[in-house]
Amino acid sequence: MKLSVLKDELDKAIQHVSKAISNRTSIPILHGIKIDASASGLQLTASDTEISIQSFIAAEKGDVRSVELERPGSIVLPAKFFSEMVRKLPSEKVEIEVNDSFLANIRSGTIEVQLMGLDPEEFPLLPQIDANAVISVPSELLKSMIRKTVFAVSTNESTPVLTGVLWNVEDGKIRFTACDRHRLARAESNYDADADERFNNIVVSGKTLGELQKILPDQNTLVDIVVSDNQILFRQNSLLFYARLLEGTYPDVSKLIPQTFQTELVLETKLFTDAIDRAFLLSREEKTNIVRMAMREDMTVEISSSSSEIGRVTEQLTAREMVGERLKISFNSKYMLDALRVMDSESVHIGFTGPMQPIIIKPLGANDTLQLVLPYRTTH
Amino acid sequence: MKLSVLKDELDKAIQHVSKAISNRTSIPILHGIKIDASASGLQLTASDTEISIQSFIAAEKGDVRSVELERPGSIVLPAKFFSEMVRKLPSEKVEIEVNDSFLANIRSGTIEVQLMGLDPEEFPLLPQIDANAVISVPSELLKSMIRKTVFAVSTNESTPVLTGVLWNVEDGKIRFTACDRHRLARAESNYDADADERFNNIVVSGKTLGELQKILPDQNTLVDIVVSDNQILFRQNSLLFYARLLEGTYPDVSKLIPQTFQTELVLETKLFTDAIDRAFLLSREEKTNIVRMAMREDMTVEISSSSSEIGRVTEQLTAREMVGERLKISFNSKYMLDALRVMDSESVHIGFTGPMQPIIIKPLGANDTLQLVLPYRTTH
Repeated sequence: MKLSVLKDELDKAIQHVSKAISNRTSIPILHGIKIDASASGLQLTASDTEISIQSFIAAEKGDVRSVELERPGSIVLPAKFFSEMVRKLPSEKVEIEVNDSFLANIRSGTIEVQLMGLDPEEFPLLPQIDANAVISVPSELLKSMIRKTVFAVSTNESTPVLTGVLWNVEDGKIRFTACDRHRLARAESNYDADADERFNNIVVSGKTLGELQKILPDQNTLVDIVVSDNQILFRQNSLLFYARLLEGTYPDVSKLIPQTFQTELVLETKLFTDAIDRAFLLSREEKTNIVRMAMREDMTVEISSSSSEIGRVTEQLTAREMVGERLKISFNSKYMLDALRVMDSESVHIGFTGPMQPIIIKPLGANDTLQLVLPYRTTH
Repeated sequence: MKLSVLKDELDKAIQHVSKAISNRTSIPILHGIKIDASASGLQLTASDTEISIQSFIAAEKGDVRSVELERPGSIVLPAKFFSEMVRKLPSEKVEIEVNDSFLANIRSGTIEVQLMGLDPEEFPLLPQIDANAVISVPSELLKSMIRKTVFAVSTNESTPVLTGVLWNVEDGKIRFTACDRHRLARAESNYDADADERFNNIVVSGKTLGELQKILPDQNTLVDIVVSDNQILFRQNSLLFYARLLEGTYPDVSKLIPQTFQTELVLETKLFTDAIDRAFLLSREEKTNIVRMAMREDMTVEISSSSSEIGRVTEQLTAREMVGERLKISFNSKYMLDALRVMDSESVHIGFTGPMQPIIIKPLGANDTLQLVLPYRTTH
């Protein structure tokens, strides 16, 4: 293998694939980035076996020649060191030459780096994904749906399927659901369906979606999503992101969501979020995060919490609307904050079916987001 | 105690004094901020017994009335909670009322917070500092001198005096020295001396100076410095920062500094720093941080380092000047990087008196900064 590549392109590709490298693995080859050089360009791959990321540097893109190939080949280079060194090279171009014993010679200006590589044959193979189902989704939409649900996945590994986000894609509709038994988050959206692609009840790890969210670009481009037996692939331009699907059957959590309400409130999102945030400060001192909410006939809502060590906070909010029975209800302020912080609307609609029934939070006048928080059983 | 205070002023004062609060202390009162309300204003104090910080909110400043006092008094409030709550209050004003059992009632808009305080009588007294010696130094100069020396203090607590920075103030000249036995950093400056104030051989903890650096404002104002028997006080407008001086006699480290050189180099600061930075990447894999430097007759300097696991980096720099015997020398790349990163000049002058003698780095054409790095004994 012998080639020269534009430093900025190489740096960008390294940063992308590095997200797949785990510090926890003890398998040396997984601390490396695989580089495959061919006439068409440079393919970089990294993997922690759960997630694999590939980034491709095309030899030519329009008028720009990013890679000059002299001799094709492959090598695995130590990711951390290779990444930091490339970022710190001063020249525009980097030359890489690999000999038969996997010793890489990297030159840039008067700088010469000799790097001991590993045999690319030992690098894990990427999953083969047949295009059973492909959908294309704008990256912004995908990121927003991840943001609105991923915080609610379970962190308890004893039920692995709940550590993921449930995907349902059908009839031009995508629905994400996350539930940790104490709260539920759901995001829905339409997308341009070309054919009757569908994949129902697949579960993608919350950690994986967190990484994907970081790597997807901020500008709005289309992301192709391909699902095969036990793998999902996200493809965005020259970037490929593979992840293993979680095994197991996701429980039917939709029955948790009440369809009618005894009490309905409309509150200004910012005022309510700030009030819960202040109550959270005290409630977290007790570890339980309990906050109390009491509705009054005069349309005010009292939010309060207390800590035996520190004291008590109480405040009044005026509801924009209040319909039905006035309730006193207690809940986990942290969960309520998480739910409120993904609301993009000016006001939120909150529905109750009794002091021991799930609380439903939605943006006012929209159905694309639904958050559910279970109340606490407390004595008021 | 009963008063109302502008929220932003209170918030700023809390942020200032909070820097003195240590998480490590198990003495409850030290997790608190003491508030003293009098007709002239509000005094906030926090202390971890090593460092104490006071911030004063004047009742009146020009046309602005920051504090409205109804009843003077004192209270100690839990710092972490009080600080976060005040920051999250929405109103412009905060009312504080304290009853006889140290229960504070804090009101802001419709928000009411009851906070259990502690008896201010139990709060440690601040040191009494007689103005034995006072000097006034611009805050920017003080921050710059701290930045140029503080990284070189020892982290080894077995010789406590070396964990501090040695101050010598005499005849309108300030000199800071830090030395951890492997390297030495010195910064010097003139200041406008009114009288013959002087304090020689006092030692201020590196940690203290790090905190002071963070709290001093970015705009250039004068800082008064007062030294008493075993205390130093920094005073900047309404802010008072007290610290205990380190005990013990600082060793005479000036004799480490060679006065004449066998070899002298002038290198571009950025080029040299970047080269050492790249060599550091490899050297740190071996924990020793060893980098080799070899001078050649043709005015080039070769910088190299290697790691048995990863490989080797070599690069050539062209010196602007090279006088005297060509040397091969090895040193700790981390220490050299630290020294180079505080050089503000475009070029640096590096002086050598042999492969086993201290290396002296100075900004070219200036004497305000001197960095010394001891070489390693290696086989080239």
